[in-house]
Amino acid sequence: MLGLMQDWPLRCHRIIDHAATFHGSREIVTRSVEGAIHRTTYSQARRNAMRTAQALEAHGIKPGDRVGTLAWNTWRHLEVWYGIVGCGAVYHTVNPRLFPDQIIYIVNHAEDRVMFADLTFLPLLEKIANKLTTIERFVILTDGEHMPETSLKNAVAYEGWIAEFTGDYAWKEVDEKAAAGMCYTSGTTGNPKGVVYTHRSNVLHSMAAVQMDMMGISSRDVVMPVVPMFHANGWSLAFSTPMVGAKCVMPGARMDGPAIHELLESEGVTFTAAVPTVWLMLLQHLEETGAKLSTLKKVVIGGSACPRSMTRKFQDNYGVEVIHAWGMTEMSPLGSLCTLKPAYAGLTGDVLLDIQEKQGHPPFTVEMKITDDAGNPQPWDDKTYGRLKVRGPAVTSSYFKGEGGEILDADGYFDTSDVATMDAEGYMRITDRSKDVIKSGGEWISSIDLENIAVGHPDVAEAAVIGIAHPKWDERPLLVIVAKEGKDVSGDAIIDFMRGKVAKWWLPDAVAFVDEIPHTATGKIQKTTLRDQFRDYAFPQD
Amino acid sequence: MLGLMQDWPLRCHRIIDHAATFHGSREIVTRSVEGAIHRTTYSQARRNAMRTAQALEAHGIKPGDRVGTLAWNTWRHLEVWYGIVGCGAVYHTVNPRLFPDQIIYIVNHAEDRVMFADLTFLPLLEKIANKLTTIERFVILTDGEHMPETSLKNAVAYEGWIAEFTGDYAWKEVDEKAAAGMCYTSGTTGNPKGVVYTHRSNVLHSMAAVQMDMMGISSRDVVMPVVPMFHANGWSLAFSTPMVGAKCVMPGARMDGPAIHELLESEGVTFTAAVPTVWLMLLQHLEETGAKLSTLKKVVIGGSACPRSMTRKFQDNYGVEVIHAWGMTEMSPLGSLCTLKPAYAGLTGDVLLDIQEKQGHPPFTVEMKITDDAGNPQPWDDKTYGRLKVRGPAVTSSYFKGEGGEILDADGYFDTSDVATMDAEGYMRITDRSKDVIKSGGEWISSIDLENIAVGHPDVAEAAVIGIAHPKWDERPLLVIVAKEGKDVSGDAIIDFMRGKVAKWWLPDAVAFVDEIPHTATGKIQKTTLRDQFRDYAFPQD
Repeated sequence: MLGLMQDWPLRCHRIIDHAATFHGSREIVTRSVEGAIHRTTYSQARRNAMRTAQALEAHGIKPGDRVGTLAWNTWRHLEVWYGIVGCGAVYHTVNPRLFPDQIIYIVNHAEDRVMFADLTFLPLLEKIANKLTTIERFVILTDGEHMPETSLKNAVAYEGWIAEFTGDYAWKEVDEKAAAGMCYTSGTTGNPKGVVYTHRSNVLHSMAAVQMDMMGISSRDVVMPVVPMFHANGWSLAFSTPMVGAKCVMPGARMDGPAIHELLESEGVTFTAAVPTVWLMLLQHLEETGAKLSTLKKVVIGGSACPRSMTRKFQDNYGVEVIHAWGMTEMSPLGSLCTLKPAYAGLTGDVLLDIQEKQGHPPFTVEMKITDDAGNPQPWDDKTYGRLKVRGPAVTSSYFKGEGGEILDADGYFDTSDVATMDAEGYMRITDRSKDVIKSGGEWISSIDLENIAVGHPDVAEAAVIGIAHPKWDERPLLVIVAKEGKDVSGDAIIDFMRGKVAKWWLPDAVAFVDEIPHTATGKIQKTTLRDQFRDYAFPQD
Repeated sequence: MLGLMQDWPLRCHRIIDHAATFHGSREIVTRSVEGAIHRTTYSQARRNAMRTAQALEAHGIKPGDRVGTLAWNTWRHLEVWYGIVGCGAVYHTVNPRLFPDQIIYIVNHAEDRVMFADLTFLPLLEKIANKLTTIERFVILTDGEHMPETSLKNAVAYEGWIAEFTGDYAWKEVDEKAAAGMCYTSGTTGNPKGVVYTHRSNVLHSMAAVQMDMMGISSRDVVMPVVPMFHANGWSLAFSTPMVGAKCVMPGARMDGPAIHELLESEGVTFTAAVPTVWLMLLQHLEETGAKLSTLKKVVIGGSACPRSMTRKFQDNYGVEVIHAWGMTEMSPLGSLCTLKPAYAGLTGDVLLDIQEKQGHPPFTVEMKITDDAGNPQPWDDKTYGRLKVRGPAVTSSYFKGEGGEILDADGYFDTSDVATMDAEGYMRITDRSKDVIKSGGEWISSIDLENIAVGHPDVAEAAVIGIAHPKWDERPLLVIVAKEGKDVSGDAIIDFMRGKVAKWWLPDAVAFVDEIPHTATGKIQKTTLRDQFRDYAFPQD
């Protein structure tokens, strides 16, 4: 027996409708790429989103077509975002930090027909345009006055392009499971793979994200999404902020400490979110200038693990609550946030920081489990490691064009490739990547934990741990060390230093010294290359 | 082009799964119908919900079958609620305050096969059981020890009935648009009509309800749903509370001032919700005893308009924030809540109370418009009245078995039968019922506003305003008055008293004195009967 509720598909553009109707005069403030501070409202942004939809349709864009953006967080990017989904097309946010070859690959793979791009990226596009075989039109996110000469064919200035249209438009009534957006993951191996969000997944994900135990934002907040819209679906902030009618402050191209601090203060920002690197720059600026954070209440930190010292500084020196977050492009992207349940809400000092080093607990709509390699659920005892697997309406079921094949287990869970523990309160802590964990005698050893301890030795510049095949234990850890310049430290000294800080059977079987450890473009240790280097390594015989 | 997100239907029982997994040790505390305070957890409640599902299946209940409940807010009612939806059946919460004939009508109309009932309602059921033609089994929500002798056939005690089952059960994987629950509206005319909620509507409604600008509850809250689960889908609290993992405090059968106050204090309640009548009793108790509210932060007041004096007392005397709410059984039920947007958040005193008299603004997922009789949208100027119409995924599209026929307008909006204004911030204020508003020369006059002013006259005991046909103005207001005992007040004196308090053309054309004004069972003025009484009334000729 079916129920008798209204058929009201979850469509992304309903979010900007709600914002324009019930929070229409609420501002979107941007440090524009051209330089000046720009102000608009949700009501005006919706109107321009409708103009964008009309312009895209006039160009010939049909529902399901992909439209690329190569752009910073600005009001224009937001207008374009809703204009694309509003005409049934699919936004494809391209990360400009990728290598040019990767950008060419993903734009062609996604078959983007139109590309919206900021002035910043014009030189890049001019260089690679002849290899972008599916792009028919470049729309530069600026006005006629700021539009430069360009060798790009078919390039127009956004403001003039949409000015020909009235904004009197009816959004396309697409299926809620239709594609709405795309974002490619930049895996450490192979080509990037496309994650395809639906209208439904974006709406449900945002409804979960705004809850008090997650980001906890309201119409009274002033939200600054520093995390770029091109990074992992923008952590949903392009949806969540208008959904609750919060004022939106966009940093544009400048994410340095002084620029971020100026906007935080001048616009009265109460909530912001970004990766640790951004906050390192901000904290450094604050320490250098003695400046304060007078309105900021909460900062979400994710993308990589938030250092304990950063949490401590924000909270102790500036009175800003840190929410450690974890997610993946494949999860739209939020998986868990480390807000405090009642069991932990009363903690202070180091005990609190211990909890805040965890990646937190998921909202309703995210299911989690940790399993061994055979898929057996592991205990939530804060100690046992397991492969972290997730399920939910905003978790991917496969990649675009079937790349990577089947990616769900028999119960429909997606393997995150992370290894994690869960505690009794359901707080998750990432301990390693599953391909980096060392499997010794059926037990798992975290390469990351060992590296973190090893770099604590005063003579160690950098440390990496990889598993080396072992006849009895299957794998045992090898510690690879770059010594600080001019320091002559022995392997035994480092192992001695680590003794007592981990279980005895975790201690690396040997230490190898190298001049350099290989890194990826984004600065992470490239363990695949390191493993290749040590492919023929054999532990010394006792 | 479809997106590639996981298929994860929105099912009600996923809520108790989430609560049991991530908030498993959080308590459900009940003042039991038997008298003692009872404690359980989400984890244990889920296990018993699974036992209930098994017992229902063993009885022969199939997906789509209706199962009645005639019960107070207790942990057992919550277990049963999830047990019913978990086996794919449909909970039908029966309001025990209805007349017995109405109860017989709706149970038969819904074709309930099993009825769960509290001890309180055993005498009622014994009286009407032979007329409940579809009920095969009565399950009394108690244990063997408290199970009384009864003339009911096929009656069993709940605890014994489910004890035969293991709780090792897999929830039924129903379509998210399958029926999950039913609640009948007790209209002022005709038979009650059944609203049929879906799994999807309940889940989406709760995700909207818990947002900061709506109820704003988190895992750190202690929530006491005083509003009964049988009243308008329990204002979603049976879903919203476990969804966020808040501690749940259930008042059972006792909603008097002392009982409610004791639980608020002993369990550290931070959030509660009920109709004004309940809060009148609580405030009276507090005033008589000088007691305080030491943990309560927010109270949601709805069901009927919250008097200004009640808001003032809660806020000024007890430091509890009042959230005025509006909804309907047909809306699952929340339509709008009067939380404060930034434009109003800084107000204090009478100006704040002016805003809080409004019914507030809706969350994302509720669309609102006000129209004239022809369906034309009316301005949001805080003055113009219009028929209030709503649309959304948790708004009904029709009634059970097609009663009442087509109920949506051409754009899919449901007419609430209320008349309201909207202000520029999107705050809605109910001004009248659409059938009671007086239509004079194309403009609308609020009967309720006139009544509220007239009862301010010291000699008036009760006042009602109805529209009387008028050759020139279509309708004009007639003021019907019950004078206070022993008072001899003239119609002119009352009209003089009202002068200046409303627009001149709003003033009633005449005053009629009666000994009594007819009322419904729930104490509301029965205007249909009053209009019948004055059917042949003619205004005095000038």
